[in-house]
Amino acid sequence: MLPGNIERFVRDFSRLPGIGRKTSERLSFYILSQPSEFSKELSEAIVRLKEETRLCSQCGNITDSDPCPICNDSSREMNVICVVETAIDIYYIEETGSFKGLYHVLGGLISPLNGVTPDDLELNSLLKRVTGLGIKEVVVALSSTTEGDATALYIREMLESKGVMTTLPARGIPVGTDIQYAGKGSLAQALRNREELK
Amino acid sequence: MLPGNIERFVRDFSRLPGIGRKTSERLSFYILSQPSEFSKELSEAIVRLKEETRLCSQCGNITDSDPCPICNDSSREMNVICVVETAIDIYYIEETGSFKGLYHVLGGLISPLNGVTPDDLELNSLLKRVTGLGIKEVVVALSSTTEGDATALYIREMLESKGVMTTLPARGIPVGTDIQYAGKGSLAQALRNREELK
Repeated sequence: MLPGNIERFVRDFSRLPGIGRKTSERLSFYILSQPSEFSKELSEAIVRLKEETRLCSQCGNITDSDPCPICNDSSREMNVICVVETAIDIYYIEETGSFKGLYHVLGGLISPLNGVTPDDLELNSLLKRVTGLGIKEVVVALSSTTEGDATALYIREMLESKGVMTTLPARGIPVGTDIQYAGKGSLAQALRNREELK
Repeated sequence: MLPGNIERFVRDFSRLPGIGRKTSERLSFYILSQPSEFSKELSEAIVRLKEETRLCSQCGNITDSDPCPICNDSSREMNVICVVETAIDIYYIEETGSFKGLYHVLGGLISPLNGVTPDDLELNSLLKRVTGLGIKEVVVALSSTTEGDATALYIREMLESKGVMTTLPARGIPVGTDIQYAGKGSLAQALRNREELK
């Protein structure tokens, strides 16, 4: 039996994704072996993470200033918006360095089975920004699932009459993956969208 | 670039063993997606873990009451003490349910190379407890390393004249391990200490 405070820590930390009971136990023992300063820093980092983090009023990005640094960066392409499901996706796309436009966080995907309708998502605000900013292209970077595809189609229909081009990131064989392991769907898309080797 | 508060969280949590930058990023995104209550609970759990955890004045175990529940448990064998390096070891031994005596935390191993002498460890307090409590057997459950073995020998010499038996946990092939993978040292010990199959 662990002492009450350790047990409480282990129980709370096991609720984090990818942290099981054993890992949580090891973390508690490690924190106990460190000076008090260390546990204070961890504890404060969690509180600040949640309390001092805001959503950008323009794009919905996670930020500590509003508008967020991306919306505020005049060197970015101001006529392309990339639509993502959650703010976290922005971080992963930024890490690639392959997109220089603006973002728009939808906050979910259209899913009639789960009761999520277009009105529950940031679609009206997307339409307003697209017309207001004179956007030429909307890149729909959503999950490659039924819900993601349905939402992408909805966005295309919404923007078609505005003369805005809707694009999707290319689908194909993941970089570094063997043909055998690419999966039927990805392989089919990759073959249909094959490119000339130059 | 992550916002400052997320970056700080990621940096602090990457200092935990087994938590890399990627895991830490995922944890931050997960915590951000949860209600404030969740992050408050985590934060409090860390502070309490460190601040409200004491060491047992008798055996050195991690505890929230002094003496610890093990020292206080009159149903345990009061004439056997198991010597461990750290309080954490007690937890793993207790998990096995195979030891019913008392414990004594040394706080380290004798290691001249690292400047750790017998005086730096809880050896005097061990001697006092052994004579005071009328201990008959001291189980030395230390790491199976040069330092661990040297410390075990030191304890045996210290206790020899007191008529106290010093024992070591058996060494051999780990349960569930193939002969091929047991390792030369373990296999040699296992062969020397072979037991009759009854």
